[in-house]
Amino acid sequence: MSQSINVTVWNEYRHEKTNEKVAEVYPQGMHTAIAEGLETTGKITLATLDEAEHGLTEQVLNDTDVLIWWGHMAHGDVQDEIVERVHDRVLKGMGLIVLHSGHFSKIFKKLMGTGCDLKWREANEKERIWVVNPGHPIVDGIGEYIELPQEEMYGEHFDIPQPDELVLVSWFEGGEVFRSGCCFTRGMGKIFYFRPGHETYPTYYNPQVRKVISNAVKWAAPVKRDYPAYGNAQPLEVIKEKN
Amino acid sequence: MSQSINVTVWNEYRHEKTNEKVAEVYPQGMHTAIAEGLETTGKITLATLDEAEHGLTEQVLNDTDVLIWWGHMAHGDVQDEIVERVHDRVLKGMGLIVLHSGHFSKIFKKLMGTGCDLKWREANEKERIWVVNPGHPIVDGIGEYIELPQEEMYGEHFDIPQPDELVLVSWFEGGEVFRSGCCFTRGMGKIFYFRPGHETYPTYYNPQVRKVISNAVKWAAPVKRDYPAYGNAQPLEVIKEKN
Amino acid sequence: MSQSINVTVWNEYRHEKTNEKVAEVYPQGMHTAIAEGLETTGKITLATLDEAEHGLTEQVLNDTDVLIWWGHMAHGDVQDEIVERVHDRVLKGMGLIVLHSGHFSKIFKKLMGTGCDLKWREANEKERIWVVNPGHPIVDGIGEYIELPQEEMYGEHFDIPQPDELVLVSWFEGGEVFRSGCCFTRGMGKIFYFRPGHETYPTYYNPQVRKVISNAVKWAAPVKRDYPAYGNAQPLEVIKEKN
Amino acid sequence: MSQSINVTVWNEYRHEKTNEKVAEVYPQGMHTAIAEGLETTGKITLATLDEAEHGLTEQVLNDTDVLIWWGHMAHGDVQDEIVERVHDRVLKGMGLIVLHSGHFSKIFKKLMGTGCDLKWREANEKERIWVVNPGHPIVDGIGEYIELPQEEMYGEHFDIPQPDELVLVSWFEGGEVFRSGCCFTRGMGKIFYFRPGHETYPTYYNPQVRKVISNAVKWAAPVKRDYPAYGNAQPLEVIKEKN
Repeated sequence: MSQSINVTVWNEYRHEKTNEKVAEVYPQGMHTAIAEGLETTGKITLATLDEAEHGLTEQVLNDTDVLIWWGHMAHGDVQDEIVERVHDRVLKGMGLIVLHSGHFSKIFKKLMGTGCDLKWREANEKERIWVVNPGHPIVDGIGEYIELPQEEMYGEHFDIPQPDELVLVSWFEGGEVFRSGCCFTRGMGKIFYFRPGHETYPTYYNPQVRKVISNAVKWAAPVKRDYPAYGNAQPLEVIKEKN
Repeated sequence: MSQSINVTVWNEYRHEKTNEKVAEVYPQGMHTAIAEGLETTGKITLATLDEAEHGLTEQVLNDTDVLIWWGHMAHGDVQDEIVERVHDRVLKGMGLIVLHSGHFSKIFKKLMGTGCDLKWREANEKERIWVVNPGHPIVDGIGEYIELPQEEMYGEHFDIPQPDELVLVSWFEGGEVFRSGCCFTRGMGKIFYFRPGHETYPTYYNPQVRKVISNAVKWAAPVKRDYPAYGNAQPLEVIKEKN
Repeated sequence: MSQSINVTVWNEYRHEKTNEKVAEVYPQGMHTAIAEGLETTGKITLATLDEAEHGLTEQVLNDTDVLIWWGHMAHGDVQDEIVERVHDRVLKGMGLIVLHSGHFSKIFKKLMGTGCDLKWREANEKERIWVVNPGHPIVDGIGEYIELPQEEMYGEHFDIPQPDELVLVSWFEGGEVFRSGCCFTRGMGKIFYFRPGHETYPTYYNPQVRKVISNAVKWAAPVKRDYPAYGNAQPLEVIKEKN
Repeated sequence: MSQSINVTVWNEYRHEKTNEKVAEVYPQGMHTAIAEGLETTGKITLATLDEAEHGLTEQVLNDTDVLIWWGHMAHGDVQDEIVERVHDRVLKGMGLIVLHSGHFSKIFKKLMGTGCDLKWREANEKERIWVVNPGHPIVDGIGEYIELPQEEMYGEHFDIPQPDELVLVSWFEGGEVFRSGCCFTRGMGKIFYFRPGHETYPTYYNPQVRKVISNAVKWAAPVKRDYPAYGNAQPLEVIKEKN
């Protein structure tokens, strides 16, 4: 990745402290494993729920080009004020990558405008994530599919707006399908939802999963231009008098 | 329109009581003029801000197939509880047609997830609304464009998600363009944003504007099927034991 | 279906004459079975490859609101002149429903502009077709999924443009997924691609499959408005002299 | 632009030889002016209609990451075989930027599947190209709009499929609007249609127009991954015997 993109990896970081199995898989927390997989030459910042302002101060967010979000059991503990702050930054151009159970985070629901609900099942089943948009930059270097031997199942209907671009669709052993890689633009911000990553599986060590996340960071990086001017506007052409 | 669709027309209904010019154009209120133009054979209900529960009780909404929304000066007076109620009904299938300044209503912003801001100007300028999707049911019976001799200008950038289908684009005398007819689906509900209709102009008496609204009602009518089942799901296929 | 829509069901009608198994499943041809399942009160016309002009004369097409297309082994035998004729009618508003192996028909490839290739396998495997757009009129009356006990597999990547609306996604027993219900608009014509229907299985007797096709007919019916005017255009506003 | 992208600029190059006014504006041909504006550090190749194989040999195309196309008066002189070659390369990942009157080129029509017709007028009128997708990489560094003092008018309806992403919309002095910046993906190839550039105006010297084209080159550059495998596929999972 030739661009220097500043990435902040946000993790709820609660499962790792209370669940032995998760702590074993991610001893330094899921955020650390996700951060290790990033290819960017920019600054990488780690932020977690239990820090002051959840680690997402104005300064941190203003310095962030792309924010990665993993949350699950404590969506309700994220303060509304911080959600507003992130929302505002996304509309102004910050990229956002929402992982797995982040589908039910306040920020994702606020940006989507829908319920964001889905079917789920924890049964150690096989997932095969198929590429349906083979020219998309988010699947650069990715094979026809990514196979994960064990994952939590997420199934349709997934209550999101139709993605602007659908890149990946999952097959699950138990019989379901899921739109697993979904691109959205909201305001000036680009958003990528990426399904895999239940806390009890080593999914974020998978090189293909890491490659997708790195590609998504690159895709979601902000453009350099002014935020649009809104409100009362002077005419650019002469308007005829009417009577 | 052969289908029997129950439509509720919601109007803020404040300008008409305080502004003589508006009262002259819409002596019975904008909602009455909008309702007169509807072609449906179903029940038409009128509802306004200053009624109890803004006229949008559970019963009224449950009986509504498509809700039309006009608001402008008092978006903040709409109770959050009623906004939640409408939002929930849209996700469950009720159609929603948002008119003109309704772009800044709580319900539209909540469904879009973006700021919904735009440029505007009140200068009695000409608007020409061009059809860019000529096979769409919302422009059934409509000419190449609709010309309005005087309207308020709305200009890009319009801060909405990319519409699922873009049907109409406006040209303004003062030099701007605007995406004026935009289709969205959120949950099971279909949403149509239609730009024209500033309160000081007789726009809702225009037969082509009325035709677009009637077509949109038909397009947005709910399908008859169960709301999706979400949450924990039993497998449909046998999942292999792994170790 | 309250509208009176004229439907022409086109079938290659070769397998049924040469393959005993197919003849047993569809003794009157697949077109007859498809036609039986339609709910329209309009005129239904049957047309097949070996008729003069493939049964698709100017008159037949001009009288057709929606054309259903099933072809497989003899795509190359369809005359280019007839393909042009159908293409022209679609751009002018005729709906087109392309079934199963019709993905490789000349008319579908011409309308899509891509290769339209895919993976396939004949292995009597289970298909489960999931609804991913639950408010779409094409899934009116349809459950969460349609299960077909035995079908041919079609797998991604399916080389089509991103559909304007994606409605159905298939899960296959052998491990693949497929975008099975895809909506497109081309010119004034609406096109629906629907995956199931290999000739050796009784798929077109399935009530849910028939319901989807009937819904698609309704969705694809033409609007009533003039074909757009193209070419040299007079100005609608005065253009300033420049020097 | 930090990436090294090989760009081939193709120009019909006939107007410049026969029309004095055009020769004055573009003494080295439009392709040379377009090439001068490119920011890429990769190889730039010029190719024109009257060269052997129109300058688009297998070798040239195989070495091309992004092809830029300007044609107008001689679309019919482009050999079908070369069109097939370009088409094949686009599906396999080569980017394609189609400029102005290239809307009616064989390659664009083949990729779109529609008529690609539009309204037009040569009246030296002002064009204002508005950004409607402000976070898109193609408008990186671009202001709210690009103003061109004199251009040919193109007006809606523009007979193309709905773009995957709509980035720019033009306002014209004479009263029309036009979707001027349209993104499509076909196979693995990304396509950008960009409206301005009539041969009698110095449009391709405009820094903002050049910036859009340079951004589009970057956006349309191919990903590095294998072309999908199509055809008969072995099952990835065990399929149950049925009877």
